[in-house]
Formats: sequence, structure tokens, C-alpha cells
Amino acid sequence: MEKYLFLLLLAAGAPAAAQPAGPLAASLGSVKVVFALNAAGQPTYSVACGQKPVVNASRLGITLADGPGFDGPLVLLGSERKDVDNTWQPVWGEVKNIRDHYQQLTVHLRQLAAPGRRLDVVFRVFADGVGFRYEFPRQLALGNFVVRDELTEFALPADHQAFWIPGDYDTNEYYYTHSRLSAVDGAPQVKASTEIAVRVAPDPQAVATPLMLKADDGLYVNIHEAAQVNYPALQLHVDRASHRLTARLVPNAVGSKAFLHAPCRTPWRTIIVSDRASDILASKLILNLNEPSKIADTGWIKPMKFVGVWWEMQIGRTDWKYASSADTLDARGQLIPTGRHGANTANVKRYIDFAARHGIAGVLVEGWNVGWEDWFGNWKENVFDFVTPYPDFNAQEISQYAKAKGVQMIMHNETSGAATNYEQHFDTAYQFMNKYGYPAVKTGYVGRIIPRGEHHDGQWMSNHFVRVAEAAARYRVVVDMHEAVRPTGLGRTYPNWLASEAGRGNEYNAFSTGSPPDHETIMPFTRLMGGPMDYTPGIFKLKNYEPTGKRQVRTTLAKQLALYVTMYSPLQMAADLPENYEQHLDAFQFIADVPVDWDDTRILAAEPGDYLTTVRKAKDKDEWYLGSITDENARQQPVKLDFLTPGQRYEAILYADGEGADWQKNPTAYQITKRVVTNKSVLTLKLAPGGGAAISFRPVGK
Amino acid sequence: MEKYLFLLLLAAGAPAAAQPAGPLAASLGSVKVVFALNAAGQPTYSVACGQKPVVNASRLGITLADGPGFDGPLVLLGSERKDVDNTWQPVWGEVKNIRDHYQQLTVHLRQLAAPGRRLDVVFRVFADGVGFRYEFPRQLALGNFVVRDELTEFALPADHQAFWIPGDYDTNEYYYTHSRLSAVDGAPQVKASTEIAVRVAPDPQAVATPLMLKADDGLYVNIHEAAQVNYPALQLHVDRASHRLTARLVPNAVGSKAFLHAPCRTPWRTIIVSDRASDILASKLILNLNEPSKIADTGWIKPMKFVGVWWEMQIGRTDWKYASSADTLDARGQLIPTGRHGANTANVKRYIDFAARHGIAGVLVEGWNVGWEDWFGNWKENVFDFVTPYPDFNAQEISQYAKAKGVQMIMHNETSGAATNYEQHFDTAYQFMNKYGYPAVKTGYVGRIIPRGEHHDGQWMSNHFVRVAEAAARYRVVVDMHEAVRPTGLGRTYPNWLASEAGRGNEYNAFSTGSPPDHETIMPFTRLMGGPMDYTPGIFKLKNYEPTGKRQVRTTLAKQLALYVTMYSPLQMAADLPENYEQHLDAFQFIADVPVDWDDTRILAAEPGDYLTTVRKAKDKDEWYLGSITDENARQQPVKLDFLTPGQRYEAILYADGEGADWQKNPTAYQITKRVVTNKSVLTLKLAPGGGAAISFRPVGK
Repeated sequence: MEKYLFLLLLAAGAPAAAQPAGPLAASLGSVKVVFALNAAGQPTYSVACGQKPVVNASRLGITLADGPGFDGPLVLLGSERKDVDNTWQPVWGEVKNIRDHYQQLTVHLRQLAAPGRRLDVVFRVFADGVGFRYEFPRQLALGNFVVRDELTEFALPADHQAFWIPGDYDTNEYYYTHSRLSAVDGAPQVKASTEIAVRVAPDPQAVATPLMLKADDGLYVNIHEAAQVNYPALQLHVDRASHRLTARLVPNAVGSKAFLHAPCRTPWRTIIVSDRASDILASKLILNLNEPSKIADTGWIKPMKFVGVWWEMQIGRTDWKYASSADTLDARGQLIPTGRHGANTANVKRYIDFAARHGIAGVLVEGWNVGWEDWFGNWKENVFDFVTPYPDFNAQEISQYAKAKGVQMIMHNETSGAATNYEQHFDTAYQFMNKYGYPAVKTGYVGRIIPRGEHHDGQWMSNHFVRVAEAAARYRVVVDMHEAVRPTGLGRTYPNWLASEAGRGNEYNAFSTGSPPDHETIMPFTRLMGGPMDYTPGIFKLKNYEPTGKRQVRTTLAKQLALYVTMYSPLQMAADLPENYEQHLDAFQFIADVPVDWDDTRILAAEPGDYLTTVRKAKDKDEWYLGSITDENARQQPVKLDFLTPGQRYEAILYADGEGADWQKNPTAYQITKRVVTNKSVLTLKLAPGGGAAISFRPVGK
Repeated sequence: MEKYLFLLLLAAGAPAAAQPAGPLAASLGSVKVVFALNAAGQPTYSVACGQKPVVNASRLGITLADGPGFDGPLVLLGSERKDVDNTWQPVWGEVKNIRDHYQQLTVHLRQLAAPGRRLDVVFRVFADGVGFRYEFPRQLALGNFVVRDELTEFALPADHQAFWIPGDYDTNEYYYTHSRLSAVDGAPQVKASTEIAVRVAPDPQAVATPLMLKADDGLYVNIHEAAQVNYPALQLHVDRASHRLTARLVPNAVGSKAFLHAPCRTPWRTIIVSDRASDILASKLILNLNEPSKIADTGWIKPMKFVGVWWEMQIGRTDWKYASSADTLDARGQLIPTGRHGANTANVKRYIDFAARHGIAGVLVEGWNVGWEDWFGNWKENVFDFVTPYPDFNAQEISQYAKAKGVQMIMHNETSGAATNYEQHFDTAYQFMNKYGYPAVKTGYVGRIIPRGEHHDGQWMSNHFVRVAEAAARYRVVVDMHEAVRPTGLGRTYPNWLASEAGRGNEYNAFSTGSPPDHETIMPFTRLMGGPMDYTPGIFKLKNYEPTGKRQVRTTLAKQLALYVTMYSPLQMAADLPENYEQHLDAFQFIADVPVDWDDTRILAAEPGDYLTTVRKAKDKDEWYLGSITDENARQQPVKLDFLTPGQRYEAILYADGEGADWQKNPTAYQITKRVVTNKSVLTLKLAPGGGAAISFRPVGK
């Protein structure tokens, strides 16, 4: 063995003596990365965009639990550079074609002292940013190893504005704070956020990624990661004085970070940068850094819209559970129903009828299976078996009814955090789905994780989520994961993994005081950078929807429509109740019309925390859909329609905030107008406080 | 709900005021248990055998992680007593019929203060001991809860002699120490036992159960547990001054002991007691305290003997692994074979041929599947997939060859401790076994457990082992679990769980300095009390079998034969190499003849640490097989053959130590003699130092 590896090493061109320690550079357009070993032999990198520094000289490195790691001194063995320019087509997405254009710099390093372990750092420089990762080559001196810490730094040149949530091991469901880096302190929010079931955020200066930054010199910078597989999620510790960010990895049950075996590699660390906020949203850097689809035949994977027996539970009208407690049994030992169970056959049929009537493809039903009386909060492993319905849910009858109506049922598999239990049962669960014709499953992980001691965002769970996607694919099932780790572009590699939650969705407006009016203007720059979110937009009854009567969704109705465009997802829920939609069927028409898969996307106007206007072209059709939203401030948004096909006339249906609309006082005031437009037309959208506008553009005869 | 439960409580006859606090007693024959609340309201019990105290007044109780537990003050709500006398038939076993005769005392307790949680303690008093457990009734005040500690004590009246191994969370593979309780200190042995892969024994005064004790007044006492399901293994902390033993439960990954939900119950704590050591071995108390079979149709469950491609790896002649390391790849990325791989098709056929020639039912093959280059020691999750053979192992060809020869293949599923990985794959693994006709699987858990932080003997793994037994049963597969938690009689409930290792088997003679000559005289009183062990007896080449030439098995050859009778198991390996057996085919005949399932068993002579003589009647045949062993001392063992059928003449074939036999100097000296005997005959067996004798008795024409 030793002989063979020695030959390999020679073949790779390892020099007898180390090369000079850089600097080595790679660039594309105005973006440039420079690698160097510092005086102590520690690897460092810096990033610039034109003349502006993005990341000052910052450390790279990994420490290991056993033996010497890669914190220096290291020597440079060599480097390679190559240029790549390809275009690929996603299975689903915001655009039809994605250009993958980068210059790659690979740096080969070795520990100066014995055992001389080798490490590669690979940089890819795109026109809109940089990705880099650590690669551990096959080598005698490094087989199995345990990552103690990752030393990656992002030394920011100034005290940027930041849009951040606390770095929590188990949740990404906080609302965003907009502050200077020097003001980051997550502790008060973590403590106060009792609406989030599990919160573990020991470092008050740690923030989650994607982290959105805005420099005073006009640069927008987004830091995240791509292809997070077999590795914990990256969080960032903020040194408030120096504005230096340092990697913090979510630990495992025994306090280390990752168990690895060379050859292997970490996820990519990503820095997207531009003078224009819209470029951040348009970036495909993270997708490009993910691997191509591992699923060969993807023809069965279908984006879709759906309604569901869900919001009625969120607002307390009905319950997930069937009985008041697991101990409420009759003399025969059967659960005694409360009469408030939402997932009963008759009610499900009502949703199927609504979906069929309005061309909505799917119906989700939560709370259909036994276990909800005692489902989370007790770190309990065997809550659900994923195949046993409550007595009032007739799976066979519902399946036949939906099929007859041309509607697809969406399964719900809540695990209450017991990932081990789900892995024991998911084959059976997907077989049940195949039997009853469910093409999609929404999973959930509310509660502390089992294996106990593991976290939602640690290495073990990152592998679990991939296992779920892979298992579901074997049964031709698409997946929507709630309470999963926030995405990092893995929908490219596992295209049946259509969406995740992993952020603060609309549901917080039901069971908590909700999210501020700027929330949806920040989400695309943060949570959505890694992939689609099942945000569950489309709430029409924006006040007085829950028992206290005190809560309200902090948007107008028109803004709820706009979200179907501004919040990209191949899986979009129309979240409100059928009876609430039936009060506003004219507005609902936009939800019925808007596609969930696209050929093209343009970000027309964007500023994190303030506003966003996005227009998208429907898949394989010359139809365009526009969404425009604002924060708590009213705004006039001019829109040039030069994206439309020249010479083609379109009927534009404009769903706008009505006279006097205001998220707080008058959220349901909207007006719908139609006009004919061309690519020469210019519209000015009037957005109310907390408001928005949605437009559909369909060709009319020439 | 509240109303209903209140009614339940009334119906159960809960009194308005507490009853007097005992004492309450139950007894059968000479065994008596007394329950009382002490002055502090803490529950206590004591056990006597005739006039001799077995356990002095000792605390009972459980503390909880949240809220008040059952450490007192408690009040007595009531009690019940009943007498039960049944007989049942095991699917396999040492006897055909088992009498389950006991007096049961159920004590209903409630916390004196709010929330007034209720606890039952149930005692069953048998003629040969006591079992008791805690039961948590369905109640409003106790739903989900976490056990912090179990307070059960065993206050022994004197400084008994003890046969003990350290209380280790991950292994039971230590050799036994014989000492007074006051001398228990496991630390030096734990430290020195580098031959055991994972050792976690933080309390040097903790010992494992079964714990075998001998009092100076002549009482033999065995402490263990029965039906350990959904609860960690019981260990005992020894107070060396007072001889008081206190329960220590193996912790989970987060440091607590068990996650439970009322209604539920703990395993039974068992105390077997007698003036005669042989009664301890004959006791069926532990089996009686287990639940009946959960498998309805058990016709497919077959005890069997087997040979295997195994000892040759243990002694270093061949390897489990195919290549020298996982990184030894050729230019095509394929593993480069070392040429030392044992599980190759040709070699497997050699074992099949041997088994077929000598009427051995099964052939085990270890190291047949990819992964062994890097299989343990790195806490690695995805080592094995359990279905991918090495290139030189042709599963199809071997399957067909074995079938043609009338031999059954035994699968090996080593998990390297990654129980999560096994649960992800075991369905596939058993499907593979069904496809290729394997009726049995030997599992292994070498290495630290995954879920990381869990232990082999904790609650999570206790549930895992049951899940494996249940899953295997769905595929009609019988199981032999190595490195599992030590058994507690669950083979009654899951009769496809034929055997476990969970103790120091013969293999330690291959890769370590082995076990002392008294080892097999202690094992039946300790490890075997809970259920069968795959001890792998039958080593014929007792010296010079491994490269150093320094090791030796510390028995004679005749003693190896006797172990097939003295170490009961429905699954018995003939562990040595075919070529070694072929040197002694006359002696091998006993292994070929000896059954693995029995109608009756008599313990003719027994003293832990010194000697044991057992005779058993073959299933459904008037044949008897006797095994007699001694420790390092030569011994003359008289045997009255009054167990034989009166009036019937038998040919007795006696496999005895030969002239000058001695485990150390001359272990392979044996002599085989035949004679005709009746139930009036008396034999005197001459056992050499470290020696033994085996006898088969078969009827001859009258």
C-alpha cells in the first residue's frame, strides 16, 4: 500500500522542496481572490471587488481532535489554475439556463512538521463572488479524522450593516435584525423568542448564514455556504470590535464538529458581492457550486401549488390532535374524540373540492395520523408511525375522491425531531404514499433531535436530510422539509427536494406576534439565498383570524399576492382557508394563475429591508408575472416593461393596494385593473405601507 | 378527560385516606419478601430464605429529572396479593416444560405531597427467589417523564464472596474476579483490559449483573434483572463497608437514564437464592418474568450447530479484510487484494464440505462484505452496507453450493457499533438473506455506539436490539447478537433471538491472553443466567494456534467437549478449523452428536469458580448428554446415572481427559471409552487440571 501511495504522490507532482508561499491569485471580472501563507505559515486569503476590499487577509484552516491539524505552519506544495465556462439546465428553477463561469485556483499545502498531512484549498472566482472549500486528499497521514474547529475567517474591512438572526444550533426561525456588526447580540432575542420550540444559541455573538451585509462604500456582500453535506452548518462569530467573522460549526452530541475520512471535502464557503443588491438575488453562484443531479430520470418531479388542512390548525380553529390527550380513552381503550379534529374526511374533501374548482394541484393534510395528542416537547422517540390514520380520516376514500377530482394529495410526516424513528419508518411511509397516490411529502422536525444530543443543523442531521431525499427519490416522492437545516443549493443535486422551511414563515403570524413588515424584503437576501422556502403565503384574512383577535399579518392582501413572485419556490402553498379565498375570488385569481416554474427572472429593484420588485417568465410560455413589495413605508415603484417580447401586446392584470390600503389599518383594500401593455410601457406601482402589487402579463392577439 | 380519569381512580378503589404503612408480605416455600414504608415514608423491602436474611431492609425508589419523584415521602394506597401456578413450553430451551409458580404482591403508592403521583411496586415470590419491578400507572400527574436515577438497593447482610466483572457501559467481556464484596475495585482491570475495544466504567465500585454471591452461611444469591426493554441495563454500586448494593443505570447521551411515558414499567429486578449452587443454575425465575412469545408462528425457528470462517481470522491466519487498507487501490480505483482474505469462495466451500460431511447444520462466514479495511475504531457511521460482497466472495455460487450440500449459510452483519446505520439497512440486509437462503444472522457491535454518546447497555440500544429481533422475525431470520447488552430472558419473548455474546467468549484465547481455567465454571452463574451465549467452544488445537506461539486455551480438549453441555445455547459453534478437527475426528464425534435443544436438564454438581456437572436429555429422544468441567484443580467427580430411564440400557461413550492430561502441559491427551450403563450405574469422572469430560448416552436394544 505504502508503495502505491508514494507513486501517487509523485504522479501528482509533489516537489522535493516547498514552493515560495504565494501570493497566488485568481480573478474573474472585477472579483479577485488572493491566497498566501502568512509569516507563521498559516494559510490566508483575501477578496476584492474592483478597488474595494471585500474580505481583508483572513485565516483559513481546520483543527483536528487528534494530532496536528491545519492551523499552520504549512508549506505550499504547488497550485493549479483553470478556467471553466459551462451552461446547464436545472430541473426546475428561476431561469432556464444557468451559466457556470469561473476561474479555479487549487492550492496544495502540507504540514511543515511530521506527519506532513496534506490539505488543498480550492477557490472558484465568479463574476459575482467567490466560493472556496477545503479538500483532504487521499494520503497515508490522514485517514479517518475528527474536525475540532474550522478556523475560516472573513475579516470585513468595516462595520457593515448586517441583516442577521442568532446563530442557533436548532432553528433559523427568528425574525431578522438590521444592525451594524458592532451591535450584534443575539441573547435577548433568543431568550424572548418563546414561540420557537427549541432554541440553543450559546454564543450571543454568533449569527446564522446566509448573512447579508451592506458596506458604507456601496458594496453588498452575502456570506453563506454551498453543498452542505456530511458536515455541520456554518455559523459566524462576530468580533464586534474588529468586524472579523470566524466560522462556528454546529457541534455533534459529543462536542466535536465532524467525523470525516479522507479523501473528502468541506462544503463551499461562499461570498457573493456586487455594487447592486439585485445582483445578489440574481446570483447563481451557490447553485453552481453544488453537484449536478444524482437523480437520472427527473421527469416525475413536478413543481406545484397546493392548499391544505393546515392554517385552520395554526389559528386554533381546529386541532391536529383527535383527542385531548393520549390518556383520554373510552372503556374500550379507544381515544375519545374532541370533535375539533381538522383532518377528518369531510373537511379534507372540502379542500379537495376547492382545489379542483380553482386549478390548484395539491392538497396537504396535517394531523391525519395518530400521535398528535403527545407529539413534541418530551424528547420522545416513537410518537408517529407515519401510516396509521385517525379513525375519522379514511385514506382510501380520500385517495379515490382526490383522484376523481384530478387533485393530488400531499402527505405530512411530522417526526417531532425523532430522526431515528423516521429512518426506521420512512420506507413504510413512502410505500403507504405510493399505495394511496401521494406524490409529495412535507416533513417536520419540531422538537429536540433524536439521536439525543444531536442538533438540527449538525453533521448527523445534514446526512439525515440527504438520506430522506434519497429514500423519497427511490419512491418517486418529492420532499418539502420543515425545521430542516437551511438550504445550501442541494436542490440541484437532489431535485426532488423541492423546498424547505428552515426560516420564519407566515405561520408565525398565526401563533405568535409574527414578523415585521420588512421581513419579506430581507428573506430573499438571507434564507432564500440557499434555496426555495415553503413560506406559505396567500393569507387573505389578515386580521381577526385567531381567537385573541389581537394578531394580524403585517402585510396588505396585495402584498400576499406579490410574495408568490418575490419568494421563489417550486412548491407554493395557498395557505388561507377556502372560505376566506371565496370572499375574494377576484384576487385569488392571481394565485390560481401564477406559475411555480420559470424560464427567466429579473430583479427590477431591490434593497434589503426596504423593497423588492421581481418579474419572472413562465416556463415554456410567453407569460410574465411580477411581484413588488415594500416594507412599512409606502413607496412608488416605477417599472419599465422592457422585459416583454418586443412587438407583442400583453394583457396586464394589476393586483394593487387599494385606496387607503395600509397593513395595519386597512390591509384588505385592493384594486384589480386590466390594461394592454407592450415592452415600451412603463408602470408606476403605488405600494401602501406594508403593501405590494402583483401583475400577470399574458399575450393578446396582435 | 380529567373527569374520566377521576372515575378510573375511584373504580380502582383508591381510599380516601392512606392505609397503614405495612409491613406487607408475600412468600412461597422458604422465600419471603416484606415491604414497608420507613419512618420517612420511603419504600423499602427485605428478603429472607427460611431463617437466613438474603436482603436486609433496602430502599426502593426512582428519582425523576423534572419534578418530584418516588424517593418519598409516599403513602400506601392499598395492596393486592394473588397466587399463580402455570406451566408453559418454551420454543427452545433446557427443559420441555417450565413451571411459573409465584405469589404476587402489588403495592400501590402515592406521593404524600402534590402532585400526588402514583407508583406501584410489584413483587413476585418464587420458590427460588424474588422478582420485583416498578410500575407507573396511567395518571394525570405523570405522563412523559425522565428517570434521573433508580434508588433500588440490595442491603446484603454480610461481606459475601462475589464473582464479578466491572460495571462498564459498553462491554461485559471482562474475565471474572472472585473476591469479597469489600474488595471490589474494577479500576485496575478496566485499565489493563486493552484487548477490549471500548471500555467506559467510570465507577470503580460498580459491578455488572448477573452478580453471583456466596454467603458464609451457605446461601447462594444471584442478582440480575429480567425483561430489560426500553430501559438501561442495571449495574450495582458496591458500598464496600456496608455491603449495600445500589442500582446504577447506564446513562444515555444526555446524561439521564430513561425517557418513559406512563403507563409503563421497569424491568424486573431479580434475586435468586438457594442453599445449593445447582438450584441457581436450574432456576427459571428470569424466564418466568419475561413475557410470552410475541411471535405467533415459531415453527421456522430452529436451533442449530455451525462451523465458520471465523477462528482462522481470530488467530491471524487469514483476514476479515480484503485489502490492506481502504486506500490500497489500483489504477481503476479497485481494492488491491492482499491474498489473505478468509471469506473467499473456495475457502467457504471447504467449510461447507466439512459441515456436510459431519452433519453440522450451518456455516458462518465473517468478512464477506466490503468495509473491513476500516471497520472500527473511528466512530464511523457508514462502514458497511450489509449487502455488497468482496470480489472473491460469490454469494450466488456459495448459496447454490450450500443448498446442494444440505448446509445452511449463516449471515454476518457487523455494524461496528453504528446502530443507526444498521437500522437504515437491515431491511435490505434481511431481504438479501432471504434471497440467498440464509436463515440466521450473527450481528456485531464492536466499537463506540452511534448514535454518538449512547452506550451499548443504555435505553436506546436496548430498544435497538429489540427492533433488530423484531425486524429479523418479519423475515423469518434468527439472530445471534454479539457485543449486545447481556441478556435478561428476552429469548422467551423474541424466540428468534437465539443467542447473544455479551460476555468473554472463547475468542479471547485467540487475540488476548485469554481466560483463566475457572472461567467456564463461573459463566453459567453469571453471564448465562440471562440467556444463551454464543461462546464458540470446541477448540481442539489448544496451543501453537497463533503466530506468537505463546498463547494457549486454558482447558483440555475434553473440557472443550463438555462445554457443549455445560454452556447451554440453542446456537452452538464448532469453532476450530476443519483441519484441526480432522486430526481428532473421534473426539469430534461428540460435537457432531450433541443436540442443541433439550427436554430436560439436571445440574448434578456445581460450585461457582470450581466445578460443574450438567446432564441434559435430547429433545424428543431418550438420549442424554453429560458435561463435567473443573477449574485449574484436578478433581474426581462421581456421577449417579439415576436420571436415565429405569430398565433401559444405554451405550455411554465417555470422552475423558487422558492419562497425564493437563490444560497447561498436555491439553490434547484424551481417551474415549464405551460401556453399557443403566440408571443404577455410577461413574467416577477423572478431571485433569483445567479438564473435563463429556458423555453421550444412547439406548441400546433391551
